[in-house]
Amino acid sequence: MSAPVTISIDAMGGDSAPEIVVEGVRMAHERLPHVRYLLFGDEKRLAPLLAPYPEITGVCTVRHTDEAVSADAKPGQVLRTGRQSSMWLAIEAVKQGEAAGVVSAGNTGALMAAAKFVLCTLPGIDRPAIAALFPTIRGETLMLDLGANVDCNANNLVEFAVMGDVYARAVLGLDSPSVGLLNVGSEELKGNDTVKSAAATLRDGPIPMNFHGFVEGNDICAGTVDVVVSDGFSGNIALKTAEGTVKLYSTFLRQAFQSSILAKLGYLLAKRAMTKVKVRTDPRRYNGAMFLGLNGIAVKSHGGTDAFGFANAIGVAVELVTHGYNERIRREFDRLRAAAPLQSPQLAAGTR
Amino acid sequence: MSAPVTISIDAMGGDSAPEIVVEGVRMAHERLPHVRYLLFGDEKRLAPLLAPYPEITGVCTVRHTDEAVSADAKPGQVLRTGRQSSMWLAIEAVKQGEAAGVVSAGNTGALMAAAKFVLCTLPGIDRPAIAALFPTIRGETLMLDLGANVDCNANNLVEFAVMGDVYARAVLGLDSPSVGLLNVGSEELKGNDTVKSAAATLRDGPIPMNFHGFVEGNDICAGTVDVVVSDGFSGNIALKTAEGTVKLYSTFLRQAFQSSILAKLGYLLAKRAMTKVKVRTDPRRYNGAMFLGLNGIAVKSHGGTDAFGFANAIGVAVELVTHGYNERIRREFDRLRAAAPLQSPQLAAGTR
Repeated sequence: MSAPVTISIDAMGGDSAPEIVVEGVRMAHERLPHVRYLLFGDEKRLAPLLAPYPEITGVCTVRHTDEAVSADAKPGQVLRTGRQSSMWLAIEAVKQGEAAGVVSAGNTGALMAAAKFVLCTLPGIDRPAIAALFPTIRGETLMLDLGANVDCNANNLVEFAVMGDVYARAVLGLDSPSVGLLNVGSEELKGNDTVKSAAATLRDGPIPMNFHGFVEGNDICAGTVDVVVSDGFSGNIALKTAEGTVKLYSTFLRQAFQSSILAKLGYLLAKRAMTKVKVRTDPRRYNGAMFLGLNGIAVKSHGGTDAFGFANAIGVAVELVTHGYNERIRREFDRLRAAAPLQSPQLAAGTR
Repeated sequence: MSAPVTISIDAMGGDSAPEIVVEGVRMAHERLPHVRYLLFGDEKRLAPLLAPYPEITGVCTVRHTDEAVSADAKPGQVLRTGRQSSMWLAIEAVKQGEAAGVVSAGNTGALMAAAKFVLCTLPGIDRPAIAALFPTIRGETLMLDLGANVDCNANNLVEFAVMGDVYARAVLGLDSPSVGLLNVGSEELKGNDTVKSAAATLRDGPIPMNFHGFVEGNDICAGTVDVVVSDGFSGNIALKTAEGTVKLYSTFLRQAFQSSILAKLGYLLAKRAMTKVKVRTDPRRYNGAMFLGLNGIAVKSHGGTDAFGFANAIGVAVELVTHGYNERIRREFDRLRAAAPLQSPQLAAGTR
């Protein structure tokens, strides 16, 4: 049996909170019976949602707060006035050691700002990154940053590479994960100065890593590497372009299947197989973006997801906790600082 | 009947040149009988390829050269030593007025460098951009830049927006095309300084345009706007990510259709409909990236395309010629410089 894990939940974050949050906790409980929950939010709304499910009342503790972060709140606003919000208190629970990780479907900018403020970055890491798994032809690929940092320097990219590498080893269980740097071409001369400089450090620098070199947009879904590293601007655009393309393709497919009686019949016969494709590309399955590099586990659920998606985000947080991701990454950066005190001033200096 | 148009062809560029080039010309000839071709390349290899097709010998003139630009040639190398190459000479033919546009499947960096050197940018345009049409749920969307400029400033983005706007009006025939700026979020506060500054100019500046504001990666395939403007780094990554995602989805689909006898039967019945989907997302249909902003029409075919794809790239060049794209864009920039001599120093100053 797994050791108990407590996850704090921002019960008021997301388009359909707190309903889908409670429903998501219920679904997660079926798969992960050893997990306990601290639910931060409006007790009056949460109590009646929990009441029908006696099986989860035993694993849930509600912590009441009247306040919630709105979907359009600016990060600065949350830092100034959001300290009694369900989001903030849920993060605080991680800081206080009451919970091993936090999950919120609230607004990304606010969550990142609050998490960074409360939890701080790990020693040696300048900026946290948002990471998520992508389905690929070969399996799954971790990609980061997906939007936390719209401007990145080469050191940031190198740190993302280390964080991704450790994730792939600790959580995905890979011995020597391959790491690629997203660029406009695979040749060494391609790209801007930032990616070229980061590639030089990853290729010849003091960090032991299975660095594949540059990868291009099509390599993400091809699964060319286990970890794709990108600045947050391009990474976010790649993520959303992929989502949009899946939507386009499935729309074309639906139209095609409705275009003739024969096609409709074909669809009926192949329906079960088609469902498999839908499942494999279901964004809810990949819900749960990890904020890597913080002194605590924080996972962002898509704001518009349903209970199934929210349960998956909880699963992502539990995986990071179970595999001791943060201890591994902390050890890795300690080791790097010890091994390369001169070659890499950024890593040697710890947080800036 | 359409007026005759002459297109110069780099017959030696691309993975399977000159075979697919000649075959592509033959296919293009069927659709566009009014087009004449100047084929630059090795006469000894071209003559036997042309011989079996008497119908095209009448519209093709071969200009012999021994030299060709290799697939891995650096742009600088081509500028220094490539002036007798089939690529260079084909571009020169446009400069000399012998051809109205050039098509090459040769290496992108070399082609852009040579085209920029020989043809120069249009007055008022700092940097040319690579543009192409994307299939979307609503129809087609023009996207630029797709990789010519990995570092862009706000003025470059504004110029791309004008070039895209003119394309959508001149070639797509839209009255008031909507133009969106690719970003990590649609809210005004999102993104880096470059996109924010470009958005401010497009929103409040002197350029009359149906500016939609920011769009995200998923908006490309959704067809949210008629023109998507991006820096070349993110644009290239978006393009290739979309290609990779189509490949992933169709791989999943193929696997699903082979997963059971029922699914196989379903596929047989729906085969004709499925082919439609394949056709709608066929990258060869969208082959032909336009180099916009040059003092002459230049189109880059994918190096690995087949004759069908190459014929489409020829079609793209002919469309730009037929709709007088370059005259339109020249008039537009003249008008802008006249209307806003002070507000926009970049546009007012002409080429830098």
